[in-house]
Amino acid sequence: MALTQSNPTAGPAPAGLKRVFNFNPGPAVLPLEVLQTVQAELLNYRNTGMSVLEISHRSPEYDDINNSVTALMKELMGLGDNYKVIFIGGGASTQFSMVPMNFLHSGKTAAYTDTGSWAAKAIKEAQKCGNVVVAASSKGSKYDHIPKLDEIKYPADAAYLHITTNNTIYGTQMHWFPETGNVPLVADMSSDFLSRKLDFTKYSLIYAGAQKNIGPAGATAVIIRDDLLATAQEENLPTMLKYRIHVEKESLYNTPPVFAVYIVKLVLEWIKKNGGLAAVEKTNFAKKERIYQMVDLYPDFYRGTVNGDSRSWMNLTFRLPSEELEKKFVSEAKAAGFIGLKGHRDVGGIRVSLYNAMTLDGATQLAEFMERFKRAN
Amino acid sequence: MALTQSNPTAGPAPAGLKRVFNFNPGPAVLPLEVLQTVQAELLNYRNTGMSVLEISHRSPEYDDINNSVTALMKELMGLGDNYKVIFIGGGASTQFSMVPMNFLHSGKTAAYTDTGSWAAKAIKEAQKCGNVVVAASSKGSKYDHIPKLDEIKYPADAAYLHITTNNTIYGTQMHWFPETGNVPLVADMSSDFLSRKLDFTKYSLIYAGAQKNIGPAGATAVIIRDDLLATAQEENLPTMLKYRIHVEKESLYNTPPVFAVYIVKLVLEWIKKNGGLAAVEKTNFAKKERIYQMVDLYPDFYRGTVNGDSRSWMNLTFRLPSEELEKKFVSEAKAAGFIGLKGHRDVGGIRVSLYNAMTLDGATQLAEFMERFKRAN
Repeated sequence: MALTQSNPTAGPAPAGLKRVFNFNPGPAVLPLEVLQTVQAELLNYRNTGMSVLEISHRSPEYDDINNSVTALMKELMGLGDNYKVIFIGGGASTQFSMVPMNFLHSGKTAAYTDTGSWAAKAIKEAQKCGNVVVAASSKGSKYDHIPKLDEIKYPADAAYLHITTNNTIYGTQMHWFPETGNVPLVADMSSDFLSRKLDFTKYSLIYAGAQKNIGPAGATAVIIRDDLLATAQEENLPTMLKYRIHVEKESLYNTPPVFAVYIVKLVLEWIKKNGGLAAVEKTNFAKKERIYQMVDLYPDFYRGTVNGDSRSWMNLTFRLPSEELEKKFVSEAKAAGFIGLKGHRDVGGIRVSLYNAMTLDGATQLAEFMERFKRAN
Repeated sequence: MALTQSNPTAGPAPAGLKRVFNFNPGPAVLPLEVLQTVQAELLNYRNTGMSVLEISHRSPEYDDINNSVTALMKELMGLGDNYKVIFIGGGASTQFSMVPMNFLHSGKTAAYTDTGSWAAKAIKEAQKCGNVVVAASSKGSKYDHIPKLDEIKYPADAAYLHITTNNTIYGTQMHWFPETGNVPLVADMSSDFLSRKLDFTKYSLIYAGAQKNIGPAGATAVIIRDDLLATAQEENLPTMLKYRIHVEKESLYNTPPVFAVYIVKLVLEWIKKNGGLAAVEKTNFAKKERIYQMVDLYPDFYRGTVNGDSRSWMNLTFRLPSEELEKKFVSEAKAAGFIGLKGHRDVGGIRVSLYNAMTLDGATQLAEFMERFKRAN
C-alpha cells in the first residue's frame, strides 16, 4: 500500500504545520494549497489593499470571482449556455423548499425517491406545497440500498422527479440514474457534487451545499436549465425564494456570501488543475477502494451497513462487533491523527467521509490503521 | 486635526502591507487585528490540525464559537435570558419575509415606517403575507429625513411596528425611537447594528446582516425576545423560515455559515476589548463629526442631501456642485487611498460609510482630503 506518491492531489504540509486527516462528513477538509492561497492573500487581495472579506460584491474583483466560478463550474460539468449557475445562502435545506415553491404547480404532482434522512426532509418540505408521491423508497430496510431503476415509479406528467444522489448519513450513493424524458430531473447532490463524471445535461436542476466537496459552509450552488426556469411559478413567493431573481441578477440580488464563493472558485481551479472530474473520479475511486478492501477482507470485523452495489464513495459506513470496539476505534484513530470517524447517531458505528480534498495518502494511511486495529483486537 | 493618536481602534499596518481606507457601504472594512488573527490561525485552528473553514459545526470548537458569540452579543447589548441570538444565511432580505411569515397573523395588520429603499422592500415582502399599513413615510421628499415620532401612526393592535434604523442608500438614521407599548417593535438594524448604545430591551426582534458593522457577508444576526417568539405562526411554513426552529436548535438546525460566525465572534471580542458600545459610539461620533464639519464648513460645495437632524453616522451623503466634480472627487480620493466613496445610483454624489472598523484616523484623513479638494476646485 505504498501508494502515497501517486496521489496527484496530495500536498505536503509545510514543516511544523500540524494537519490531521479530517474525515468529517461536512463541513470537511479543503485542499491545503487552497487554504494556503486564502491565507497568503487574506490581508491584501490582489493588491486592492483590502481583504476579500472586505471587498464590495459590486466591485470588479468580485465580478471576476463570480464570473470565473460560474464559467469554471459549467466547464467542469460540460454544460452549455442553457444552464445557469447561482450561489445562494441557506443551505440545501432551503432548496428543499425552493424547488417545490417554484416548480410544484397547483394540480401537479412531484415525485421523490426516499433514500435517506435528507431525502425524507426534502419530501416533507414539498408536501407543504402540494401533491407528492414517493417514487421509490428504501426506508423499509433502514435506507441500506438505492432502489433499482425499475422500482422508480412516477406519473408521466410529474412536475419533476427529485433524487438524492448520495446519502451522507446512511452511506449509499446512486450509481444508476433514471432516464426521465420529459419529466424534469432534479437532484440534491450536496454530498457528492463534482466528485465524479456524470452526464449533467440530463438534469434540469442540481443543488449542493458547498461544504463537502467544493468549499466551506455558507454557500449553496444551484445549477438550473433555462427550460425549467421558464416554468417557475412566482406569485406571492418571497423574492429571496425565486430562482428567476437570482439568475437574472447573477446571484447579486442581495449581498452574496462573498468569501465562501471565493473559496469555491479556488477549489474549482484546483480541480481543473488536477485534471477535472475524470481525474477527481479516478482518485476518489482509489480512495474508496482502500477502505472497502478492509471491509471486504475482514467482513466479520468491519461490517458494512449497506448493499454492495449501493456503497457510497463519499461516506463509507460500517459497524464493528461491539459498540465498545467502535468507541475504541474512534478514540485510537483520533490519537493517530484520523478525526471525524464517528458514525451518525441514526446509524451508529463508523463513517469515513472521503470528499475530494481528502488525499489518497489519507485514505491509504487510514486503511493501514484499520488493518493494524483489526489485528490488535 | 492631529487626532490620529487618540483613536483607540486604529491598528498600525505591518511594514510593507498595503491597506487602503475602505469606505464601502458593505461588505465593508474589518478591524485589521481581526484579519490578522484570522490569517494567523487559518491553517490550524487552536491546534486542531484543521482550518476553521474545515471544522464540523457539531465539534466542541464550533460549540465554543457559537456559545461565545451569542453570550458576547447579549452582553454588549445588555440583554437577559428572555432574548435569543441566532445566525442564519440569506441576508436581511430573507428577514423581510421571515418577519411577516412568522408574525403577521391572519386578520392582523403590520405597520412599517417607509424611510428608504430597504424599508420599501421590507414592506413589499410583508404585503405578500397580509395587511400592511405604512405608519410614516419620507418617500415624498426622496427619503431625506426620518419622520418625527408624532407622525408615526399605527393601529393599537398592530401585529408589530417595523422600523429601519439606518438607511444606507439615503444617508439617514433614526435618532429618536417610538415607544410602542404592547405593540412589538421590530427593527432592521443592518447598517447601524452595534454602532451605538441603545436600549435594546425595547425591541422584540432585531435583525442585521453582518457585513457592515460586525463581520463579513454570509451571516445574518437575529435577536428575538421570547414573548414574541411564542406567538409565531408556523403552519406550512418552510422549516428554514421558522424562527422557532433556529432558536431551539441554537442556529444548528442545518449547517450554519461557520466561518462568518467565527469572524463575528472575533469582531465582538474586539468591540468588547475596546470598551463596548459606549466606546464604539464615542469613536463613531468623532468620526462622523470630522466629515460633517467639512459639509457644514463648505455647504455650497459639499451639499448635504438630508435634513440635519436625520443625518446618519454610518452613511454620510452629499453632492458636489456638478457631476463632473463628483467624478473627480471619487477618482482623486481613490488615487489618495480612499475607496468606496461613490454614492448609490438612486442618490448620486458621494457616500462616506463609517462603520465600526473604519478608524478615526481614516475619517480624519478623508476630512483633510475634502478640505484640500475644496480649496483646489
